[in-house]
Amino acid sequence: MDTHTSSDLTVLKVGGAVVENQESLAQLIRDFAAIPGPKVLVHGGGRSATALASQLGIETKMVEGRRITDDEMLRVVTMVYGGLVNKNIVAQLQAAGINALGLTGADMDIIRSHRRPLKNGIDYGWVGDVDCADGPRLATLLQQGITPVIAPLTHDGQGHLLNTNADTMAQTVACALAPQFSVSLRFAFEKRGVMGNPDDPSSFIPHITEQDFQQLRAQGIVSGGMLPKLENAFQAIHQGVSEVLIGETLITA
Amino acid sequence: MDTHTSSDLTVLKVGGAVVENQESLAQLIRDFAAIPGPKVLVHGGGRSATALASQLGIETKMVEGRRITDDEMLRVVTMVYGGLVNKNIVAQLQAAGINALGLTGADMDIIRSHRRPLKNGIDYGWVGDVDCADGPRLATLLQQGITPVIAPLTHDGQGHLLNTNADTMAQTVACALAPQFSVSLRFAFEKRGVMGNPDDPSSFIPHITEQDFQQLRAQGIVSGGMLPKLENAFQAIHQGVSEVLIGETLITA
Repeated sequence: MDTHTSSDLTVLKVGGAVVENQESLAQLIRDFAAIPGPKVLVHGGGRSATALASQLGIETKMVEGRRITDDEMLRVVTMVYGGLVNKNIVAQLQAAGINALGLTGADMDIIRSHRRPLKNGIDYGWVGDVDCADGPRLATLLQQGITPVIAPLTHDGQGHLLNTNADTMAQTVACALAPQFSVSLRFAFEKRGVMGNPDDPSSFIPHITEQDFQQLRAQGIVSGGMLPKLENAFQAIHQGVSEVLIGETLITA
Repeated sequence: MDTHTSSDLTVLKVGGAVVENQESLAQLIRDFAAIPGPKVLVHGGGRSATALASQLGIETKMVEGRRITDDEMLRVVTMVYGGLVNKNIVAQLQAAGINALGLTGADMDIIRSHRRPLKNGIDYGWVGDVDCADGPRLATLLQQGITPVIAPLTHDGQGHLLNTNADTMAQTVACALAPQFSVSLRFAFEKRGVMGNPDDPSSFIPHITEQDFQQLRAQGIVSGGMLPKLENAFQAIHQGVSEVLIGETLITA
């Protein structure tokens, strides 16, 4: 089953590893520029943030893959995600003929979030859980030929920036645009895609429907960190996204 | 003569000293939010850039008030101007009910520049001399109720960000919008305005026409750093800007 639905809009999420290396960034710019039709790029940048924090003598503390973001770390991620990574991508996309616009959630109020409450007694600090994205505003930009490039920062509407998970932001943006576009949500991935057996390249699974997913889960073929990724993918599909790609694995209803 | 022309659009330029201190930033947000009609904010941030550079062990070299911008310093100003300062202003304007959008010249290709050629044998590095601003694009944003907040960074269209003088960017933006708006270009200033005698507060000059300027210059009443500021102000007026304010001193044709 290799029947990609035709999609009007692509939302691509790339992790920090891709955008922090000059060569892989140049490749990303080429690949992203080649995607036809309107598109949105959502990027990470965690490794650069950790590196800058270290240079400044600020310790990076992670809990379950999430960065504890105190006042000093918020300054670091605001500089790295909103400035360094975002603006370099924008300038390079411009050079590739893409009219890019760098955004955080605060810009034009496109993505709001609220500060994460204490969780199991853990204070994540200035970390935001996303509330909503302004789909019509983003659609207006896209219709004007502008390509949003979104950094993993949001705001609470009360003057605070919040460090926010880029996967969640990509999903929220894709869902917010689903009423106006047929949306393909793509997660760049270090592996080829969803694998039946992580150690066996031939176990790559090209297409997963919701029915397939129930079976794969019941059989224990997908497990661990892939489970929440697939759950989120189907959640996006329930919210109107046409298809999700995790690497090259196509996920549809 | 205290006859401010009625103006449809305000372009306000504020220096780093204002935006880098929490109290003066809060005051700026209140003052700027209170300006009626469409508006644009152009900000600096040099002192924060110097502070971050120092923390990172990078020496700041200035020549005639301009920062020598090598690769490392470009990273610093991209982080500080495009990220830290810009995004904090945006988030706080959002909290004040202003639908702000943070921009560098690379975003939506709004301001292009070219790398400054060697000047008296001095290589300024990644410093841009402004070529043009996209007035129609900025006007479209303003007509949509969006308030651009512009960081002192531009791009060359070939993938390079360039460190750019904020005064020049404000003037370029004001001129680019003059065909569509009656523009008031305001430079926040540490003194009350243009002074006949810097040491005598009563020597404040409330209004200067071009004719006045010729006399003040001939008499040696304005001199030094104020001369280029006033020359630039009249240049903006020749390019269609309705009025310029340096502090509270009104400058008109």
